Amino acid sequence: MTEDERYMRLALEVARMGEGQTSPNPMVGCIAVNGGRIVGQGAHLMAGTPHAEVHALRMAGEDARGATLYVTLEPCNHHGRTPPCTDAILAAGVRRVVIAVLDVDPRTAGLGAKRLRDAGVEVTVGVLEAEARELNRHFFHRVRTGRAYVLLKYAMTMSGHVAASSGHSQYVSGENARADVHRLRQLFPAIGVGIGTVLADDPELTARNLDEGTRCGRQPLRVVFDTSLRTPVTAKLLSAPGRTLILTSERAAASESARRLAERGDVRILPIAEKDGHLDVRAALQVLAAEGVNAILIEGGPTLASTLLKERLVNEIRLYLAPKLLAGGLSAMSGVFTGSMEEAVMLKDCRTEWLGDDLVLTANVHDREEV
Amino acid sequence: MTEDERYMRLALEVARMGEGQTSPNPMVGCIAVNGGRIVGQGAHLMAGTPHAEVHALRMAGEDARGATLYVTLEPCNHHGRTPPCTDAILAAGVRRVVIAVLDVDPRTAGLGAKRLRDAGVEVTVGVLEAEARELNRHFFHRVRTGRAYVLLKYAMTMSGHVAASSGHSQYVSGENARADVHRLRQLFPAIGVGIGTVLADDPELTARNLDEGTRCGRQPLRVVFDTSLRTPVTAKLLSAPGRTLILTSERAAASESARRLAERGDVRILPIAEKDGHLDVRAALQVLAAEGVNAILIEGGPTLASTLLKERLVNEIRLYLAPKLLAGGLSAMSGVFTGSMEEAVMLKDCRTEWLGDDLVLTANVHDREEV
Repeated sequence: MTEDERYMRLALEVARMGEGQTSPNPMVGCIAVNGGRIVGQGAHLMAGTPHAEVHALRMAGEDARGATLYVTLEPCNHHGRTPPCTDAILAAGVRRVVIAVLDVDPRTAGLGAKRLRDAGVEVTVGVLEAEARELNRHFFHRVRTGRAYVLLKYAMTMSGHVAASSGHSQYVSGENARADVHRLRQLFPAIGVGIGTVLADDPELTARNLDEGTRCGRQPLRVVFDTSLRTPVTAKLLSAPGRTLILTSERAAASESARRLAERGDVRILPIAEKDGHLDVRAALQVLAAEGVNAILIEGGPTLASTLLKERLVNEIRLYLAPKLLAGGLSAMSGVFTGSMEEAVMLKDCRTEWLGDDLVLTANVHDREEV
Repeated sequence: MTEDERYMRLALEVARMGEGQTSPNPMVGCIAVNGGRIVGQGAHLMAGTPHAEVHALRMAGEDARGATLYVTLEPCNHHGRTPPCTDAILAAGVRRVVIAVLDVDPRTAGLGAKRLRDAGVEVTVGVLEAEARELNRHFFHRVRTGRAYVLLKYAMTMSGHVAASSGHSQYVSGENARADVHRLRQLFPAIGVGIGTVLADDPELTARNLDEGTRCGRQPLRVVFDTSLRTPVTAKLLSAPGRTLILTSERAAASESARRLAERGDVRILPIAEKDGHLDVRAALQVLAAEGVNAILIEGGPTLASTLLKERLVNEIRLYLAPKLLAGGLSAMSGVFTGSMEEAVMLKDCRTEWLGDDLVLTANVHDREEV
């Protein structure tokens, strides 16, 4: 590992402190080095608060002059909620900037690096680039495609069932796996479910461990895919802490039910185009992206999962595989006819981990467009 | 590890040489030690050929006098196809016999050890007993319960499907996993499938790698569970090398189709009682056990799998989990209504292994009766 890689790895570690907190912004970490000594470090922790570079430069103070700055994402060159980082870097007299990956935000993409170079700063781009892209895959995906990134999470028996034939599903997974889902919910700005799941399970869809050891103190946005607006006004998720967004057809969004649901407080109802009798899930993910949602954790049910899969909109999966077998039951993905095994969505980068008695499998979709 | 355990471990390793070859007999290994030196060793390699003890004593020759014999299963005390091993042990002048586990065959169970003790031989029982039971779990299960042991093998996508909605299933798994199935087939005296699989896939159900590196040179018995005797006379498995057994209803077994099928050569048709519109799978496993089949590898389809599972007759599973997702498709186990998640059959001793891109999961059924 080169010296540049060593410092960049530290910057990536620091960046990860912001996990689940920075949306719609990316996570960014920064390390300032001068005379072989770390003189400053910083992480971006929440949208609207200073960027990582600003924290690191403030910490470095006078030592920033002549320093090398390792930053996991190209410094911004535009006025957002905070001034451009390029200004701060130039003002501090930094000699060299090492960037893991260029931004994809059209307001910065390449312009931050160019601005620095034009001002005489030595700029290196591409150190630990793959890791930096992976770290902010949600953000990159949203900016590049204009759609929210989709992680499909599901719990399944080793017989391939998510519920018994009767629909009974409590519980597929053991305690450790169920606790892990609450941890996961904290890392996503939004959680999505189909209306079937709301009607069958009446879930709260909150990150229940937010009180102890909360990372950002805010509940994810709950998103219900509900074509005919069947969400009952008594649904638990409407009174749980946090906001709820119900995506529904244009017709239903203009109905009396919509008016009654909207009276419930933290509930918004948005119309989405329809496709093949379902909501157009691609359009739905675009609406979420436009709302600044980088990524959504889809928790079921089978129809929503198969619709997203059929449209090739799933980016990643997390499967909790329980060591039990049902003689008959319901499938994790169903509702869509698939003619051939060749239509399967291929997975890559499969990893396994045991959580209690459950095997957790994570994988990326193989044909996911590169970020 | 004690000295007894060390030698017994060797005896267990030697025993495993007979894997897939000894049915209906158990695998047995034997090590003869005299003066701190291994003077003989042997394994039982095929029914009708000498037992492990006899091989080891022959190898030891005069050194058997005063030796200690480590044997993974209680020496037989009855005339089978070969004379009792207890006779040979006593004739050789062995001083001590260490036995991993007592036999369950009523003709020997405890009698072999008693005969040796009564003749003045020092006998120790129970060294690495759990390993010895595990090694011969097929044999022990058959003798104890009067039914063939069941390993359910299936290949499934990570979406829980064994085929697309159309029934198309070639292939779920990659090349390495498919080759592993052929290896597995060699280790079982019988392979079972439901008639649906015969009609849908027309499989040969042979161990295709028997030519290169064959372990026993014989094909497993193919068993078709075929209530209404729908197996076509043109089915590939009828002309593939090896024998076929078709289990069918009493009515169908007496039909004209039965007569035509039986003309095909290596095909037998056996009547089995019916239960809930299916063959009584418990009775079927009893018939197989009576035929000397210690264990059967069930390769599908979903109806046979769920019937066996519902009747709690599955002892072990081997799941080839493929890194792909189908939006819709068929389940590995279906056809039986399951009212609640609590009816699930629990698994234990789960192990994972990668074969190419596929994850292979093996597990034992939790409530399997102890052998």
